[in-house]
Amino acid sequence: MNAKNLTKLADTLKTLKTETPYNYVVPDLWNCFDYPKDAMIQTRSGELMVNPYDFYRYLVDEVFIKKTRKGFDPHIAISQNNKRRDRGDWVKKSFMYSTMIRTSSAWDHDRSGELEINNLYNLKETGTFIKMLALLPLLKKMDIDTLYLLPISKHSTKIKKGDFGSPYAVTNFTELDPNLKDPITEDKMTIDEEFAALVEACHLLDIRVVIDIIPRTNAIDNDLIAKHPDWFYWVKADEAYETPRVAGIEDGTYPELEPLEVAFKDKMIQKHLSLFDEDPMTKDLALWNKVKRSKNILEAVKNHYNLTIAPAFSDYINDLQPPWTDVTFFRLYLDHPKATRGFLKNPDKQAPYILYDTIKSNLYPGDKPNMPLWETLANIIPTYQKRFGIDGARIDMGHALPKPLLDMIIKKAKAIDPDFAFIAEELNPKYADIAESFGYNMIIGNGFMMSPRVFTGHAKEYYQESIKLPIPTFACSETHDTPRIASRFGKERLATTLTVLNMFMPNGVPFLNAGQEVYEVQPMNLGLDATEADRYHLPEDDPYYNKLALFDKVALHYMHERRWNIPDILEHVSKIRKRYLTQMHNPKHVIALETDNPAFIGYGFYKTSKKQKGNMLIVLANLNPDHDYSWHLDIGKLRHKANNTAMEGKLLFSTHEFPRAFTQFVNNHVLDIHLGPGEVKIIEI
Amino acid sequence: MNAKNLTKLADTLKTLKTETPYNYVVPDLWNCFDYPKDAMIQTRSGELMVNPYDFYRYLVDEVFIKKTRKGFDPHIAISQNNKRRDRGDWVKKSFMYSTMIRTSSAWDHDRSGELEINNLYNLKETGTFIKMLALLPLLKKMDIDTLYLLPISKHSTKIKKGDFGSPYAVTNFTELDPNLKDPITEDKMTIDEEFAALVEACHLLDIRVVIDIIPRTNAIDNDLIAKHPDWFYWVKADEAYETPRVAGIEDGTYPELEPLEVAFKDKMIQKHLSLFDEDPMTKDLALWNKVKRSKNILEAVKNHYNLTIAPAFSDYINDLQPPWTDVTFFRLYLDHPKATRGFLKNPDKQAPYILYDTIKSNLYPGDKPNMPLWETLANIIPTYQKRFGIDGARIDMGHALPKPLLDMIIKKAKAIDPDFAFIAEELNPKYADIAESFGYNMIIGNGFMMSPRVFTGHAKEYYQESIKLPIPTFACSETHDTPRIASRFGKERLATTLTVLNMFMPNGVPFLNAGQEVYEVQPMNLGLDATEADRYHLPEDDPYYNKLALFDKVALHYMHERRWNIPDILEHVSKIRKRYLTQMHNPKHVIALETDNPAFIGYGFYKTSKKQKGNMLIVLANLNPDHDYSWHLDIGKLRHKANNTAMEGKLLFSTHEFPRAFTQFVNNHVLDIHLGPGEVKIIEI
Repeated sequence: MNAKNLTKLADTLKTLKTETPYNYVVPDLWNCFDYPKDAMIQTRSGELMVNPYDFYRYLVDEVFIKKTRKGFDPHIAISQNNKRRDRGDWVKKSFMYSTMIRTSSAWDHDRSGELEINNLYNLKETGTFIKMLALLPLLKKMDIDTLYLLPISKHSTKIKKGDFGSPYAVTNFTELDPNLKDPITEDKMTIDEEFAALVEACHLLDIRVVIDIIPRTNAIDNDLIAKHPDWFYWVKADEAYETPRVAGIEDGTYPELEPLEVAFKDKMIQKHLSLFDEDPMTKDLALWNKVKRSKNILEAVKNHYNLTIAPAFSDYINDLQPPWTDVTFFRLYLDHPKATRGFLKNPDKQAPYILYDTIKSNLYPGDKPNMPLWETLANIIPTYQKRFGIDGARIDMGHALPKPLLDMIIKKAKAIDPDFAFIAEELNPKYADIAESFGYNMIIGNGFMMSPRVFTGHAKEYYQESIKLPIPTFACSETHDTPRIASRFGKERLATTLTVLNMFMPNGVPFLNAGQEVYEVQPMNLGLDATEADRYHLPEDDPYYNKLALFDKVALHYMHERRWNIPDILEHVSKIRKRYLTQMHNPKHVIALETDNPAFIGYGFYKTSKKQKGNMLIVLANLNPDHDYSWHLDIGKLRHKANNTAMEGKLLFSTHEFPRAFTQFVNNHVLDIHLGPGEVKIIEI
Repeated sequence: MNAKNLTKLADTLKTLKTETPYNYVVPDLWNCFDYPKDAMIQTRSGELMVNPYDFYRYLVDEVFIKKTRKGFDPHIAISQNNKRRDRGDWVKKSFMYSTMIRTSSAWDHDRSGELEINNLYNLKETGTFIKMLALLPLLKKMDIDTLYLLPISKHSTKIKKGDFGSPYAVTNFTELDPNLKDPITEDKMTIDEEFAALVEACHLLDIRVVIDIIPRTNAIDNDLIAKHPDWFYWVKADEAYETPRVAGIEDGTYPELEPLEVAFKDKMIQKHLSLFDEDPMTKDLALWNKVKRSKNILEAVKNHYNLTIAPAFSDYINDLQPPWTDVTFFRLYLDHPKATRGFLKNPDKQAPYILYDTIKSNLYPGDKPNMPLWETLANIIPTYQKRFGIDGARIDMGHALPKPLLDMIIKKAKAIDPDFAFIAEELNPKYADIAESFGYNMIIGNGFMMSPRVFTGHAKEYYQESIKLPIPTFACSETHDTPRIASRFGKERLATTLTVLNMFMPNGVPFLNAGQEVYEVQPMNLGLDATEADRYHLPEDDPYYNKLALFDKVALHYMHERRWNIPDILEHVSKIRKRYLTQMHNPKHVIALETDNPAFIGYGFYKTSKKQKGNMLIVLANLNPDHDYSWHLDIGKLRHKANNTAMEGKLLFSTHEFPRAFTQFVNNHVLDIHLGPGEVKIIEI
């Protein structure tokens, strides 16, 4: 099948190339595809000076288009190119790379000292779909097979947090974020074609594409307001609106019925409820028909109705999170929640409102679902499937959606691609079974909180319990919401240890957060398990000091001194992982190996074999970054299951030494193991 | 007067400018002329990204051409624009900046990691006359009034030491070094016009230009060989030629008659003498008339005559210096030296030879001066005077020239400009009177050896003895031949101390070696007071590690963290210096101030005044970079001479504190002085 968008891109780059000399640099990690040496200059920093037209065109022609093949259509999901159906369970054995394109493919290409939207060459220095292509060979080197994209839809620019505003404040679900359009194609390609080219390229490299869908919240200046003001909550514009606090209830209380009843009696809540009003269309249709034609509808509504969109806040009572000023909630039901209706003083006169009950509409449904809205939300994924052939999605705040709406969303996507995968934004492994019952293929889990906490035993618990979960969890030590693992306890050493160990977590889906491969220390957001101190991991003179990628113009530190370390390691260990991947996901073929030390993690995986050798993989990690240990390790149970009698093995990998023969046997059942500080050893016997 | 070459340069830059975007950077020190902020981008390194056409044109138009004035002709020496004659003694009160243009105006403008001859924009990254213009405002800021240029003539590329070869191996005295031509003017300007523009610009800023003339040695592939093979010494091409060593004579013996007699009896010397032969023209005129038309004359002479030019070596017997393979000596006399002729076995059959006697031809003249050659050498300076209006010259190895030849050289220059200044390459202040008698205005002296040696008392001797010299010496702590002062004992701290102190040395001419103002540590050459270890002051990953500017492609470290420190200090103290300049050069107005510490240097200067105050300048330095001292300092003699009774003064400058009132008087005659480590204090009372 022809990769039509990539072909168009190559042609466009050829057409638009000029004879201007280009002093344009890219990080050397962006060239994992042997760009010809005589076409570039390696600068002293290690950055590569290239002609961007030639560079990206070479990449498209030589790396992607060469992979086009008969019978493979890069425009549809990879699973749809296969015969075997798996209901999206391919995601369970994937290796995922999470990226926000605006950040991941950002670079100060002209070295002016600024990430310019329009640089010396009228090119963009923040990330674009096209520049993201240059990272795919790096991902492929690490054996990443799934690209997980943070939101790529048009988002709010009204309430800008930071330089840009958050991609989670979506203003239009089906339009792509214009920030990600690359000016290198001028007006010769649309942004849709550019994203389509990226998906084509991923598919040609056997990399699936998963997007992030946000059906529960949306920007306070969402494009839908003009057509459907009644899908939103409105408050009086001239009165102070704040996140309510309920007297006598603990901070962060889950909104069960009992505390809710207390809350509704609270004066501040009553004041809060009184701020809400009917939507402007319902209030005055004739006026609305004029107002909705205004350029700035929100401004017009404010002037004519004294109304504005109500900002969102957390679904937990008295949560300490700051108000979410850039987003609001959709009005999922047309009436008040059934269970809490009675708590209202005058339900008939109460205008639709945002409170813990309406936020948590999965727990507190009304009687009248807002069906046109539900249809709209359920159609988001299908439009990305049809236009780009994406392979899966994460549902943001899916736990706060009514079950019937979630069912609709999943059903519509599966109707197009029965193997479309769904990832639940479920952090608690306890609820993995619920997520499974809802139709999710995996959950996010809490690896980012557990794995860095070694001496409390959290890490051990995390790495031992995963095998018992009904569906896999991410094997991850950081996400875009959390501190960076290289900035935490153990720094780069433990970051390396955990990144390797995550490749072998039973029932785990290894998850690399963009930047983790270059030991990035600056978090992208402070949403989870972070403190304000996490803003300040970079030196003050760093251009991205105190910047958060979710809101600000940021590039990753691709020129980190040890930038090739994790990519080189992952290139090696992912090959080992693949050979035992089936076993890792089958509890029967996983044996936990134990010592008395909470810093020790040990796994044995075995294949059924008649050879009595070469069928056991032993993965051992010392999560203490500062101390080494020696253990006598009992592998008797593993030997027995594997029916393996070999007294010589191979050290296939260590973070601390070169591969070698492994002969440290105390006896048939006991290994004599030494692990250096933070060492991971992978032994095959 | 019109600055015709600068005007042509501005016009040329305007004509040749294209619409190409230029990612071209210069160090920020190159912009001491307020280039408009909106015309440049300051990169994170501090380098300025500019359009080179606009940048240099703005400089030419706004800084230089604006200074053109009626009655001032920038094409002739500055003195010739004045009415007062001083026989070149203007140089005694000058402040000199020594520069090799190839290095001083070198920069990796496209940040490719290499100093390219032809960079991304077809522009030159090594230094050029035109780029040197951008340094003049920095020089002016520091109040430099004399630009001392290392050789700018065409030099040998046959025997390249390093990347380029030494500018001291001159191949043509009157042609300019084509390396210094700037491709930015393409073929619209000649190299002569470009150097003329530099001299114009200097003169317009009241900066005189002094050049370096090398009449004693010249390149072994000098252009004169074709016309005058008999001006050179020839040896057999197929026999090993080496610097001779004389048995039984100490290393580095001065070639007096006695050791010379011993030498001539030495077997190696006899072997050495036997290698010489008559020049090819004398040997076979008919053959020569063919051979001289060859493209590569030396090669042809070798093939047809088995002869080649004899390389030079030191004039000291058994000097340990390596042979000077890139240069030879001129044959200044047509016959053998009178005094040593008798030492030769067979004077009539001995071909002209290079040995200590013929090298030291001032001591060992022959009877027949090579007059056409002498005329040629004596005409070098006049051609630069006539073509460019230069103001002075240093005579390289002038001490090894016959007195009559030196007289000719000086006389010819003075005939054109009676105020033309001559600097003697005399390092020993003992011989300052001889230099004076020869017509020199000043000597180089030995500041670079003396001033860094604090605890041996050398520094003290140097700073105290200068006032007694009949003509001034350079007040300098490094030259292009020596280690950098910032790399020596006391590092940047003592470098600062000495650089300031040199501004106030009585009878001294402050001398700044290009790079000294940015604490450069890499020497340009290892010719004097240096060891091999001095090659390695830079970190191994520095692009100029182990490079010597005299031979290699090198740029100065203009982006040094404290690059503005010395320029800012000199801007301030040079104003103070000027107010007492007359006194500094008049022994009657200089009083040495004393303590018992060899690290202490103190001067008092006074003006005759009736006010009894504000007429004494006290300069105090603590050359111990690691320790502070307190002294009770007797200024009684100075008070008396100055007829000064004031009990309050001003601390005009300190390297360690801000200016303030000075009131630390023990009594009328005694100051209570505290000097921090390496501190210089300048007090006016």
